[in-house]
Amino acid sequence: MKILVQKFGGTSVATPERMLQVYEKTADGLKRADKLVVVLSARAGETNSLLALADQWSKEPDAAERDCLVSTGEQVSVGLFAILLKQRGIKARSLLAWQIPITTDDNFGNARIRSINSEALHAWLKEHDVLVVAGFQGCTEDKRLTTLGRGGSDTSAVALAAALGAVECEIYTDVDGVYTTDPNICSTARKMDRIAYNEMLEMASMGAKVLHIRSVEFAQKYKVPVRVRCTFNDDPGTLVTQEDSSMEALLVSGIAYDRDQARVTLHAVPDVPGIAAAVFGPLSEKGVLVDMIVQNTSLDGLTDITFTISRKDLKYTLEIMTDVAAAVGAAEVVHDLSVAKVSAIGVGMRNHSGVAARTFAALTKEGINILMISTSEIKITILIQEKYLELAVRILHDTFGLDWDIN
Amino acid sequence: MKILVQKFGGTSVATPERMLQVYEKTADGLKRADKLVVVLSARAGETNSLLALADQWSKEPDAAERDCLVSTGEQVSVGLFAILLKQRGIKARSLLAWQIPITTDDNFGNARIRSINSEALHAWLKEHDVLVVAGFQGCTEDKRLTTLGRGGSDTSAVALAAALGAVECEIYTDVDGVYTTDPNICSTARKMDRIAYNEMLEMASMGAKVLHIRSVEFAQKYKVPVRVRCTFNDDPGTLVTQEDSSMEALLVSGIAYDRDQARVTLHAVPDVPGIAAAVFGPLSEKGVLVDMIVQNTSLDGLTDITFTISRKDLKYTLEIMTDVAAAVGAAEVVHDLSVAKVSAIGVGMRNHSGVAARTFAALTKEGINILMISTSEIKITILIQEKYLELAVRILHDTFGLDWDIN
Repeated sequence: MKILVQKFGGTSVATPERMLQVYEKTADGLKRADKLVVVLSARAGETNSLLALADQWSKEPDAAERDCLVSTGEQVSVGLFAILLKQRGIKARSLLAWQIPITTDDNFGNARIRSINSEALHAWLKEHDVLVVAGFQGCTEDKRLTTLGRGGSDTSAVALAAALGAVECEIYTDVDGVYTTDPNICSTARKMDRIAYNEMLEMASMGAKVLHIRSVEFAQKYKVPVRVRCTFNDDPGTLVTQEDSSMEALLVSGIAYDRDQARVTLHAVPDVPGIAAAVFGPLSEKGVLVDMIVQNTSLDGLTDITFTISRKDLKYTLEIMTDVAAAVGAAEVVHDLSVAKVSAIGVGMRNHSGVAARTFAALTKEGINILMISTSEIKITILIQEKYLELAVRILHDTFGLDWDIN
Repeated sequence: MKILVQKFGGTSVATPERMLQVYEKTADGLKRADKLVVVLSARAGETNSLLALADQWSKEPDAAERDCLVSTGEQVSVGLFAILLKQRGIKARSLLAWQIPITTDDNFGNARIRSINSEALHAWLKEHDVLVVAGFQGCTEDKRLTTLGRGGSDTSAVALAAALGAVECEIYTDVDGVYTTDPNICSTARKMDRIAYNEMLEMASMGAKVLHIRSVEFAQKYKVPVRVRCTFNDDPGTLVTQEDSSMEALLVSGIAYDRDQARVTLHAVPDVPGIAAAVFGPLSEKGVLVDMIVQNTSLDGLTDITFTISRKDLKYTLEIMTDVAAAVGAAEVVHDLSVAKVSAIGVGMRNHSGVAARTFAALTKEGINILMISTSEIKITILIQEKYLELAVRILHDTFGLDWDIN
């Protein structure tokens, strides 16, 4: 039996008209598979309204009760869509997470899926052609409702696909796939037909925002083929899947960027053992996420430590660093808000040298100063001045030939 | 252990400010009892919005899916109120019907409660001082969500009070109790301190609308003392309870009325056996509720049959009666929309003759023509021309001395 999972986000179910378009996608899905599992988010704006309601009494409302409140958003979507399907004569029913159940830990507001009762789902699939499952929500062992955090509906869909052995998990959104870079910046950006899980993870963390990062990790772990498609057209979208040799033939698959970067430098820090821990320990304790880190070679027993953080954390970070600088004997703390990062990503670069050199050369040729460099197996990230961001994206997109369709 | 049940309706939880008033009532309840069970409705307007959403695809949406959708209204209320209680340091948690469970039949949209897991409730009451339970909703044996129909939250509250052996079930509303008649019509109308279940049933069915009729039947069956109170003041309200001798000392407890009456008469019907069945059978089959029925003594083998129905059913009823009249050989069908009914209600009249005679005499003295009469053990109902309705209510209220406080 061929089971297909389809997930539709908040903008796709926001209005009756859009829900009719979701119906068309579901009817099409039934032509391509024996049974469908449709996962829905709350209607656009609904989750934020519910969160605002929950936050009215205090800044930190009880997390379990907030989940009880917020999970109603998806419940409305699935009830409504099941009404539509049944009215059109399709054998369908809604399913809430607790009815299946989709069991999670009790980390309310950001729960992790522990298990899914796939036997129950298979039994319902005998009686129905379409199961309409509420995304984003779960249920603890002792029957309390949980939510999976932002983007949790993608994770619900991928987890259901894994549990059911679905042929594919289609994630419908308002873009028609994953692009080589942001088309708003680079007119030659091209929709990719395929992308490896690893590449998608690097793209997502850079703000590509098409798929939630946890859902991609889940898909990679359980080898679920995920297809990013658009609710409002018939494009086959982008398949997120395991690496294969054709992907490796491509040095770089995509160029990502992130404007939300602030740079902080501690100048002239005594280069003694444990200095990095002394600097980054307090940040970690206070929940500040550090992105790039560079420490230069020591000169005269003094070194510079530079790192980047989200701009919203800058004020708080500078407070912490003032104390740290005094404690470790650093000369001064300086910061810069006018920076941004750009990355070249590709599983192909793993087996090829020279990608870094080509990146630097291309940027330097256009007079773009490289402020920081960070590399991983499949990614090269460069911090530059923000005013050069669009230019850098276009240069790298062109340098690695991403406007050519080689698939 | 003294358990108190408090139920708050949609207007009481409609806004954050009102929810704070509900909090005050709950804090006060905790002074009067060891443990509280607070039952909440959906915020005012919410259920109607959700029903409108459910009805957008078809006039008869799937009833099970509609219940899945509509039951989110109460879920929002209980999550929100539990957040408030916990923020104020009260040991509290929300409970949805399926978590307890409150088990119902599968008559979606109008389900009946079958059982309540009171052991689970007692266990939660050991850990918490206040349980905030979603009213109006239930759960079938196979874990589908149900709703109890209009006014169902009152029924939830009374059923929970019965299951827990609560000392009292307080129903908070926007009026401060049950009145001897409508204060908008009769300025001397007086709030009653006590009323018998039977009397309340007769008042409710006449449109007093303070308590849902099913909840009163439930309270009567399980002898649950119900107190109707106002969320927005400190009045002790009206206790709905078993009859006692003080109630019987009063001939009439209240005057109710109903404008939603239309009168239909079949003239000159051959008075043969089975004629009543021939007239009322088709109405019953088509779902038309008949209220008062009068059949006069036969003259020359012909009789008149008169009955009243809700005005919205008049057109449909006349269509049915045209066929019926032809079939049974009636001379004509006439109708009248300018009628209304007024009732005197009291358990005291059961042991006293003369209530009917005093009623007729009082109305006749003011020149009010009596169109139909119907009597039960504790109620006398008169159909009159609608234009005399307010006058008749005031006359009867005065005739039976309801403006005197004899309690």
